[in-house]
Amino acid sequence: MARTTGSHAGITGPKIRQAALRLFAQRGYAAVSMRSIAAEVGVQAGALYNYTPDKQSLLVDLMRTHLDGLLEAAVPDDGGPLARLQQFVAFHIRFHADRPDEVFIAYMELRNLEPDNFVEIEALRRRYEDRLEQILRDGAEAGVFEVADSKIVTLAIIAMLTGVNTWFRQGGRLSLEEVVAQYWDMVRKAVGA
Amino acid sequence: MARTTGSHAGITGPKIRQAALRLFAQRGYAAVSMRSIAAEVGVQAGALYNYTPDKQSLLVDLMRTHLDGLLEAAVPDDGGPLARLQQFVAFHIRFHADRPDEVFIAYMELRNLEPDNFVEIEALRRRYEDRLEQILRDGAEAGVFEVADSKIVTLAIIAMLTGVNTWFRQGGRLSLEEVVAQYWDMVRKAVGA
Repeated sequence: MARTTGSHAGITGPKIRQAALRLFAQRGYAAVSMRSIAAEVGVQAGALYNYTPDKQSLLVDLMRTHLDGLLEAAVPDDGGPLARLQQFVAFHIRFHADRPDEVFIAYMELRNLEPDNFVEIEALRRRYEDRLEQILRDGAEAGVFEVADSKIVTLAIIAMLTGVNTWFRQGGRLSLEEVVAQYWDMVRKAVGA
Repeated sequence: MARTTGSHAGITGPKIRQAALRLFAQRGYAAVSMRSIAAEVGVQAGALYNYTPDKQSLLVDLMRTHLDGLLEAAVPDDGGPLARLQQFVAFHIRFHADRPDEVFIAYMELRNLEPDNFVEIEALRRRYEDRLEQILRDGAEAGVFEVADSKIVTLAIIAMLTGVNTWFRQGGRLSLEEVVAQYWDMVRKAVGA
């Protein structure tokens, strides 16, 4: 089976992921069947199983790909803590604004991950959070930031920045770069810099 | 029909809302049937229709009740802008921490609201946001706060505060009151006070 469908795997795989992403985001994981994903791609339901063993694997794959992409794309840590924090803020807002469905699913469908998968996804998310926390600690140590509890400040900043996705629309009152500038101003002040 | 079931309406109504809330939060609105809500309550599916015309009405009712409760419970605006902002921060965190399922649904299931219902729910949410924005404007006018764009700062603060729900657990490292104190410190600094 793998052999006969192998030649299309490169095309079908991304299409299946895109269809699953769109449907999960629109209807929610629990309401989406493998059959409806196949229909969206335009293949037989059986063809899906050449690509993925089940719906849970598709969900984990989407979350893992999103978080791996986030970790790979994150800006290099150069400069002092203030410059690194500014880079983090701008990167986070831009990366998430480009991926509203992935961000929505990453938050909403955590409840539908099987326990081992939850552990894996949480570890990736934690690695990303740790990067911001390290910047905050470095800044506090250098006397540049006033941060009472670096873990709490990390979670607060990430929630604040990710929240942009709930209201920002291209072509609205503000450009994304204006939004980035406003959030940077708040984050900078919130850490006492 | 309404007459014969009327005597139980006071008991069944809240039970139905509780069951719908729990199931929507666990599985998502689209994956929950009226039949499964009835089963959770322990009544026949037909009995549900004495209480609510359909699943959409249940969803809107849950969101409306949550937002009405939020608007009614919100602390009175007394004191200067700084005191009012501090009261808002503490109130918001405490109110939302007590209602994780309501908060989760209010964000996640917006996509499943029919257009008129979406307009109604968004107007309630906007009224709540306007209260915070008014505090920020009053503070900026009084020269107590430095707020470049009061709408953006409002949305950023609300996202930051609501984010507590994604990680806070009773009995964890910090008490809710310690969390409130940390967030207040960040919000105060973020508005330049």
